[in-house]
Amino acid sequence: MKLYDYAFSSAAYRVRIALNLKGTAYERAVVSLIKDGGQQHSAAYKAINPQALIPTLQADGHTIGQSLAIIEYLDETHPMPPLLPHYPAEKARVRQISYEIACDIHPVNNMRVRGQLKALGHSEEEIMSKWYAHWITIGFTALETQLSGSKETGMYCHGDSPTLADICLVPQMANAYRFKVPADAFPTLMRIDKTCRSHPAFAAAAPEKQPDAA
Amino acid sequence: MKLYDYAFSSAAYRVRIALNLKGTAYERAVVSLIKDGGQQHSAAYKAINPQALIPTLQADGHTIGQSLAIIEYLDETHPMPPLLPHYPAEKARVRQISYEIACDIHPVNNMRVRGQLKALGHSEEEIMSKWYAHWITIGFTALETQLSGSKETGMYCHGDSPTLADICLVPQMANAYRFKVPADAFPTLMRIDKTCRSHPAFAAAAPEKQPDAA
Repeated sequence: MKLYDYAFSSAAYRVRIALNLKGTAYERAVVSLIKDGGQQHSAAYKAINPQALIPTLQADGHTIGQSLAIIEYLDETHPMPPLLPHYPAEKARVRQISYEIACDIHPVNNMRVRGQLKALGHSEEEIMSKWYAHWITIGFTALETQLSGSKETGMYCHGDSPTLADICLVPQMANAYRFKVPADAFPTLMRIDKTCRSHPAFAAAAPEKQPDAA
Repeated sequence: MKLYDYAFSSAAYRVRIALNLKGTAYERAVVSLIKDGGQQHSAAYKAINPQALIPTLQADGHTIGQSLAIIEYLDETHPMPPLLPHYPAEKARVRQISYEIACDIHPVNNMRVRGQLKALGHSEEEIMSKWYAHWITIGFTALETQLSGSKETGMYCHGDSPTLADICLVPQMANAYRFKVPADAFPTLMRIDKTCRSHPAFAAAAPEKQPDAA
């Protein structure tokens, strides 16, 4: 398996966690979102991923983009340990939490979106305080209410083993910490994040552990 | 089944298509995103969906938010006709296309995101030309390349029967047409959209067919 990866891409971070949880060895091809004006825009990479976004996984002769599509594929082709619970209603809960992060927080704060805000005349400081922190705070507030109010929440977002929801949560929490968005109002998220980060699969996937983070 | 729905919510539109494809009867509870300053912000609705977003499905005693979590749940509990292909790599292709729309186009252009741009001082015209059309054009350009270049594309996004990918495509195309984003550069998307809209399940789910559209 070959992962087109970048240390500080939070979507790629998700896939690294999933690959580690599955115990699957993989080769990394680093595509820097910074160097050369963004190596994801090269013709060579766009031939692999027309969206020019990280990550892409090549496996079993297939080329798959979109982190959540990759993780569902890994879960279907490498069932143990499962990253989704067994019953449809529980799967739905885990996917709902995942999409709240992967659709409604992360893409709105993505690098290219911040770039467009800059092109529209906003300062870095304004983007951080009135956009980045805004969407994380709104999203985390809803998540904290859901997770703290549900008996299905355990050591992890759903029960006592890691699922897709935790895989989405941890990189988003890392972004919040990295850009100093106050997280004190989200004790359940902080607790789960801490539990995850002490898990070797999550720890080894952290951006600062990747060779290209230096 | 009860769907918390709004005619012009494109995420709800997806779920209406899926319910129609499954041939499942459902009750609609209309939550207007316009009336009363947005009925989704009421305490009653936020008790059902802490994100204060449409849609929510109540089924079999479960309450599920996030349109794609709902549709995967429907597909697992009502397997016929399937909304995802059988093989993992094909499932991955369909999910990749779906998430390109549901993560990287739709949420960035969502009503609440446009509201925040307005709060930051942008005019309606600027939001439409330099934001809304911008993200649709970038997203559709990648999709057109993928779909036109793949033998797996058929009458629909994947083969000759409707999948989750078409369910995501049609509401996004409707948004493009509604807000007059030029679509001529995307002939494959236009062709598939036209095929879908002639399918009774898609046609009956259209915003203008809902009683609250008036």
